Amino acid sequence: MMMMMMMMMQRLRRSEEFIRFGCKSLINLRPNKNSVSRSVSGFVNHYDTKGRLFESKNGNHYNTELHHRCLGRNLGMLQQYKCFGSSSASQIERNPLFSSLDSKDVSYFKEILGDKNVVEDEERLETANTDWMKKYKGSSKLMLLPKNTEEVSQILKYCDSRCLAVVPQGGNTGLVGGSVPVFDEVIINVGLMNKVLAFDEVSGVLVCEAGCILENLATFLDTKGFIMPLDLGAKGSCHIGGNVSTNAGGLRLIRYGSLHGTVLGLEAVTANGNVLDMLGTLRKDNTGYDLKHLFIGSEGSLGIVTKVSILTQPKLSSVNLAFIACKDYLSCQKILVEAKRNLGEILSAFEFLDNNSMDLVLNHLDGVRNPVSSTENFYILIETTGSDETNDREKLEAFLLKSLEKGLVSDGVIAQDINQASSFWRIREGITEALQKAGAVYKYDLSLPVEEIYNIVNDLRGRLGDLANVMGYGHLGDGNLHLNISAADYNDKLIGLIEPYVYEWTSKHRGSISAEHGLGVMKANEIFYSKSPETVAIMASIKKLLDPKGILNPYKVLPHTLFSH
Amino acid sequence: MMMMMMMMMQRLRRSEEFIRFGCKSLINLRPNKNSVSRSVSGFVNHYDTKGRLFESKNGNHYNTELHHRCLGRNLGMLQQYKCFGSSSASQIERNPLFSSLDSKDVSYFKEILGDKNVVEDEERLETANTDWMKKYKGSSKLMLLPKNTEEVSQILKYCDSRCLAVVPQGGNTGLVGGSVPVFDEVIINVGLMNKVLAFDEVSGVLVCEAGCILENLATFLDTKGFIMPLDLGAKGSCHIGGNVSTNAGGLRLIRYGSLHGTVLGLEAVTANGNVLDMLGTLRKDNTGYDLKHLFIGSEGSLGIVTKVSILTQPKLSSVNLAFIACKDYLSCQKILVEAKRNLGEILSAFEFLDNNSMDLVLNHLDGVRNPVSSTENFYILIETTGSDETNDREKLEAFLLKSLEKGLVSDGVIAQDINQASSFWRIREGITEALQKAGAVYKYDLSLPVEEIYNIVNDLRGRLGDLANVMGYGHLGDGNLHLNISAADYNDKLIGLIEPYVYEWTSKHRGSISAEHGLGVMKANEIFYSKSPETVAIMASIKKLLDPKGILNPYKVLPHTLFSH
Repeated sequence: MMMMMMMMMQRLRRSEEFIRFGCKSLINLRPNKNSVSRSVSGFVNHYDTKGRLFESKNGNHYNTELHHRCLGRNLGMLQQYKCFGSSSASQIERNPLFSSLDSKDVSYFKEILGDKNVVEDEERLETANTDWMKKYKGSSKLMLLPKNTEEVSQILKYCDSRCLAVVPQGGNTGLVGGSVPVFDEVIINVGLMNKVLAFDEVSGVLVCEAGCILENLATFLDTKGFIMPLDLGAKGSCHIGGNVSTNAGGLRLIRYGSLHGTVLGLEAVTANGNVLDMLGTLRKDNTGYDLKHLFIGSEGSLGIVTKVSILTQPKLSSVNLAFIACKDYLSCQKILVEAKRNLGEILSAFEFLDNNSMDLVLNHLDGVRNPVSSTENFYILIETTGSDETNDREKLEAFLLKSLEKGLVSDGVIAQDINQASSFWRIREGITEALQKAGAVYKYDLSLPVEEIYNIVNDLRGRLGDLANVMGYGHLGDGNLHLNISAADYNDKLIGLIEPYVYEWTSKHRGSISAEHGLGVMKANEIFYSKSPETVAIMASIKKLLDPKGILNPYKVLPHTLFSH
Repeated sequence: MMMMMMMMMQRLRRSEEFIRFGCKSLINLRPNKNSVSRSVSGFVNHYDTKGRLFESKNGNHYNTELHHRCLGRNLGMLQQYKCFGSSSASQIERNPLFSSLDSKDVSYFKEILGDKNVVEDEERLETANTDWMKKYKGSSKLMLLPKNTEEVSQILKYCDSRCLAVVPQGGNTGLVGGSVPVFDEVIINVGLMNKVLAFDEVSGVLVCEAGCILENLATFLDTKGFIMPLDLGAKGSCHIGGNVSTNAGGLRLIRYGSLHGTVLGLEAVTANGNVLDMLGTLRKDNTGYDLKHLFIGSEGSLGIVTKVSILTQPKLSSVNLAFIACKDYLSCQKILVEAKRNLGEILSAFEFLDNNSMDLVLNHLDGVRNPVSSTENFYILIETTGSDETNDREKLEAFLLKSLEKGLVSDGVIAQDINQASSFWRIREGITEALQKAGAVYKYDLSLPVEEIYNIVNDLRGRLGDLANVMGYGHLGDGNLHLNISAADYNDKLIGLIEPYVYEWTSKHRGSISAEHGLGVMKANEIFYSKSPETVAIMASIKKLLDPKGILNPYKVLPHTLFSH
């Protein structure tokens, strides 16, 4: 037995691989630029008055209505917004009940905010009107930059009385067009509200304004020996208010849970300007309905989050990262179960990718190599975070040995230093960048029962045949699959094969068509694939209750047909 | 240095104390009978038609309107309900819009449920009308026992159309009168809906009916190698549906977080009989407003929870328990901060009691002794749960040594076996039983910033002087104080000194007047001490939206004045 163990140890240790590292902030060294960690399509499309594409900035031309993109326009009298994609094509009319901005409105806003925080400059508006993927583009003529809750309240009270639609905006890093105008909504950007208001080192509770950038909060907490309970690729730009409003998931969910558990309190301003003080800092508070949850994940459609109270976590000293290869998906699944049991309290990430994803990264990104010597069907990253370097390392090693003994793992390495760890993460987080370089890409963000996750990849692969390259990767520990289809170009036949097939498949298996990205304008009309008509009806009632005129982030989250006049 | 460490080690090890245990289910051996782990006042009071007390079952007589109790009655035409207590005295009128039950109603219910699940038997109704503390008593003439969601839906649809008020009931273990009728509400007890519907060993997600008893679920999961994310003293009786409806806290919250984080899905029936399918089993789902949170902690006033999907945790093999003594509260606070940092991932409970609580337990409970040899001002229980016995034990020992070195701990022991661990828990969980034996007791369940927790105990002690014995204990790791005042009897002067002082003090420090018990009928009118008028107004609007006639658990949670006609 001892001999067998030693042999396995040797097998894992072949070349330089089974070696260790201990560092304090590996996570901070992950690539954190949007451009690296997320797919950027890089196109700004312009449409003619009939909704046909006539130009795209990078010179590519697409067949109109063939690719699944949503583009806003506000062209003269037409004022229509089109969503393309064969199965989910739909058209949004600008709500005629909304007023149009006039000079008196601008004067009023200047009065309450000061001239410099009322932005009419075209260049700045161009940026604010466009999402960071350059996939969605509105035509707002005004961006307001309130400095505090009182100003947000005054703005909303005025807009509500004037029936002026608004779009709340944070770091504008969303992926579903939720943070840019669809038509001419007034942009309320909370970027100037970026103060840390309080931090309690006993409870670990942080209270801050909504416009704080996630990475700045992480840096602030680092000096206190704490970490945020969430971490995202977009952390260098995204705001905590936006994170809360979109119920951002990310890399630490498996360990610290969702924002519904870690956000302890909120302050939000409703459409009529009412300031709702729900800014508790307590872990337990059972006094009435817990309204803050309505604002977590409602994508700014029920109120503008202005302050956040969040439970942070002590920064633990020991981080280890393993990169392992598996023959089949069932083994990945079994390793997840075993990791939850055997690494239990120190498990902090469990990510997976298939060989198609690995190939793509190896082919399209410079300086990336497969950390394990053999090619396998699946690869898994297991990260542990704990308080004791020696114990944690031993635990991870023992776990990997056991998995090897059971035949679940065919090869594996543990990063020996920060650089190596960073190179492992580069593979996982570089997939979207590689996809972008490979050509056209159709992206889906699905939650599914873990057992089903890879079935949809296989089914779709069978369905599409040689037409496209189907890749599966994502947060396996959370049941979150990033299903990506890479092809030479966007075409009608392909999208017809993908949609509504993917949504129907997901719905049939009680999955979610949006695990962590939200619905925004992109998937507002697809909500019924994941939610029942009864619950959507109640959502619409609550929207009407809190925002009777519907001025807050219109055309998003819920099907616009529910609010058509 | 080495010598110093060894001396400290010896100090901790004096007598038999610094010894270890490793067992698989220590938690399951904690006292779990309500009678042991919770205070039982044991009185059923009866009132005359003017609301004056004329009898109490155990022979004690109280000055009417002096003690803080809430008792329902339905006496002829008066139909009033009184809450006693000098500062919060109030009177509830039966809502005259509610119909009274007639024989046709009973026939209808028998038709849909069958005769035996329509309970009119007086003895069974007596039990169902009375809460387990025998503090609250309604006068319902009917209890319905639906077997499935469809029957719950039919019942509610009928009751709504007839304007018959209902009270949802589970294990009836609540502490604020939320689970018994106030007047003649029809009791809907979900006890027959007690099936486990699914368990996924990969994700750890359990789906079950609302009437499952928490301990039965724990037993079921034990066979699968999992544990529930919550554990309560009342687990032998309470239902998971009730746990969810009251957002139960308990002993594992510090480790696994609140039910808002661990409940993944719900099925609930609204007042009009609509079945809301929110029974997702996914960790991530950002498709629309997350409505399930409205039903978590709304105490059955928005809908009856019929099914629950909850994320369970792998059962880890190593549990350790330390009992330590501290000189002052500041040390307790510092130890909490250090424990979160150094025990981080294995910390599973952090409970505290003051010396007044310890004295009470030693004086009133048989066979209990102080595990540490010296008398100190504060005692702390630290439990760790992890996957590696040796590592975890070493971690806990090292932590205690360090705390001793820093002068934070004056004495401490680690339980060596299950019996010893059980005897440590007996002290903490026996406090309420000891309080009950000591005389009259005024109980408060507060959340406060950890720094403030013991200030209210000291302030109240100064305020009450020799009139009463003030005790502080509770879930320090969660900022949850159980403030208890023990006196020879209930009297006007005393309650006048306690209330509204305690509520005002809590409110001033942004605490919660109900950390985990809920508001029920006891504290419905006190909600403004913890919530702003704007948020309470929205709660009332949501109540009206989902239950326009107000038939679901009336007079509870929200101030009844909001709904008076």
